Amino acid sequence: MTAHHPSLAVVGATGAVGREMLAVLEQRRFPHAGIRLFASPRSVGSTIRYRGEPVPVEALGPGWHEGIDLALMSAGSGPSKQFAPAALAAGVRIVDNSSAYRADPACHLVVPEVNAGVLRGDPRCAPGPRRPGAGVLCAVPNCSAIIMLVALNPLRAAFGVQRISVATYQAASGAGAAAMDELREQTRQALEGVSPESLKRSVFAEPYAFNLFSHNAAMDPATGYNGEELKMISETRRIWDDPRVLVSPTCIRVPTMRAHAEAIEVTLSRPATLAQVRGALAGGEGVRLVDDRAANAFPTPLKATGGDEVLVGRVRADLARLEELYGPEWRARGGSGVGGGGHEDLPCDRWSLFVAGDQLRTGAALTAVKIAELLI
Amino acid sequence: MTAHHPSLAVVGATGAVGREMLAVLEQRRFPHAGIRLFASPRSVGSTIRYRGEPVPVEALGPGWHEGIDLALMSAGSGPSKQFAPAALAAGVRIVDNSSAYRADPACHLVVPEVNAGVLRGDPRCAPGPRRPGAGVLCAVPNCSAIIMLVALNPLRAAFGVQRISVATYQAASGAGAAAMDELREQTRQALEGVSPESLKRSVFAEPYAFNLFSHNAAMDPATGYNGEELKMISETRRIWDDPRVLVSPTCIRVPTMRAHAEAIEVTLSRPATLAQVRGALAGGEGVRLVDDRAANAFPTPLKATGGDEVLVGRVRADLARLEELYGPEWRARGGSGVGGGGHEDLPCDRWSLFVAGDQLRTGAALTAVKIAELLI
Repeated sequence: MTAHHPSLAVVGATGAVGREMLAVLEQRRFPHAGIRLFASPRSVGSTIRYRGEPVPVEALGPGWHEGIDLALMSAGSGPSKQFAPAALAAGVRIVDNSSAYRADPACHLVVPEVNAGVLRGDPRCAPGPRRPGAGVLCAVPNCSAIIMLVALNPLRAAFGVQRISVATYQAASGAGAAAMDELREQTRQALEGVSPESLKRSVFAEPYAFNLFSHNAAMDPATGYNGEELKMISETRRIWDDPRVLVSPTCIRVPTMRAHAEAIEVTLSRPATLAQVRGALAGGEGVRLVDDRAANAFPTPLKATGGDEVLVGRVRADLARLEELYGPEWRARGGSGVGGGGHEDLPCDRWSLFVAGDQLRTGAALTAVKIAELLI
Repeated sequence: MTAHHPSLAVVGATGAVGREMLAVLEQRRFPHAGIRLFASPRSVGSTIRYRGEPVPVEALGPGWHEGIDLALMSAGSGPSKQFAPAALAAGVRIVDNSSAYRADPACHLVVPEVNAGVLRGDPRCAPGPRRPGAGVLCAVPNCSAIIMLVALNPLRAAFGVQRISVATYQAASGAGAAAMDELREQTRQALEGVSPESLKRSVFAEPYAFNLFSHNAAMDPATGYNGEELKMISETRRIWDDPRVLVSPTCIRVPTMRAHAEAIEVTLSRPATLAQVRGALAGGEGVRLVDDRAANAFPTPLKATGGDEVLVGRVRADLARLEELYGPEWRARGGSGVGGGGHEDLPCDRWSLFVAGDQLRTGAALTAVKIAELLI
């Protein structure tokens, strides 16, 4: 440890994301001086083992940030709004995992694999000791947006992206540890023969065992889009600094534990071949290609669980678009409209993908720690 | 019973769809003379209770169709290919739930709510006693295609449909009773702490408990589309008698039991307003609108389970398309690009929906019985 290593705080240390942040800090040997852990009052007095030592859990309160250089916050929007401003004013660098400040122009919305440059361009983000009055606020984007953007960023860099349609398959963890418990407990009950309407519901209005439902975020009655979907639209535009990119999301909660999947259809600015698209994805930061047509092996939530990369597969030119582009030529070469072949080398500007990423890591904790690494 | 009521056979009577067909025949008081039940040799000797009486299960063999006027087959493609031709030659009317004959031009591919007219136009389908040599072969389409087409048909009738993108959330039942058992048993093991790689797998290569995966149908290596997706493309074109309609599917198996869900984005030939789209859907045959934005209540697999209708909700104009169509005007009226309002009355030609339908009923048994009703 040197004098330049920041003293660290993890706020919300007992939650699903908080625990994962501690694991990621350990795994990545994040360089810091002391660490302090904060959580809600009911956890105060307990300890959490970190780097082999028990660390006491403290309560947030006025002056909580005294002596702290860098804080990773994941206690929800309420605590972030209540406790971040004074810390910022005192010069603390904050990486906030809640949605409290994501739309705030003074806050950096960062996916390190995508737009780390916004931090490098901000003099307050220069590494070194903290300067009072010059705190920095970064927000971890919405988990579904992160996973989609890590997957699509290599395609954007190589070919440009004009439009995205995405249907999500979102895990319980996105709604916290209580939602994961609810899925487990309801499923146990359902297997014992409890009827769907009698399942005990606390987190979600809909039964969750062997069921799926439109994302529970608040619905905008004017547009018919829910908050999760609106975040995917607005955060994509902000992170890519492209107000014109078109995003059409449908967000669905499915009965999986901690990795999100997404079926994505992307329209590129410039046509590309399968080899070019695969090549771009294979070289993408934070991306791992899992795309074995012969073995029918593609990304799944379980394959993504515990990993640091977004898995990308089912990479294919949109057959409908190939027909629009090459109807006569393509049919003549054996592309009968369904199946057929002989068109792997035809450039196409619309592609389909199926991706999966660990919601607690890529979608939250890992991204938060990677942002913190850019701030030290 | 009159002399005109057909004598009936149900082939594959012990399977998940077979059992559901018997339930649907009872519920709809399907008019028939005698009934005979056929299944694989291991079920022979058992009986199935039907309309209050035990009916013996018989084995298929040469001459199985003697004395039978109408057969509902759901024993898989192999038995259909082996036992349908002789029955057809003898004048039996067959409704086949397998994929054996779906692409055969001599076979009617029918969704009763959509294209019952093809049967009315075929003189062999005229009601009455069977005529030797004039058998009729009808196929029940792919379950995901049925559910999608029942939902979209009212929009096609009112506004025309040019293009469909669809991501499916397909239940275990689509792969039969054994797949439902595998989901139950693996989930039980997972809750007891068995690791994903140690879960007992028989039906699916991927672990199924708390997981999801690209549909297990065979993959076409040339296009990267799987068989389920290719069926959704080709069957839509055939059922709508529209070789130009563009369909872009992604088929995913999720850990639900017996109802499929689908996130659909549809491009209409003519723009429509929300009221017009909702009105068309509300009047659609076999459709029930479940679309309460205020209550955040939309279709789910459990809501669809056991029902006869395809539930349709999350009905909304594609925000991205509204921006393309009305960018400046829409923004001026308060549509800020995400959220905002004041555009419910703007016509749009691209719409998003989320639908759910019982795979065993709408996707198979109910559709088979409805086709049979058109043949008597």
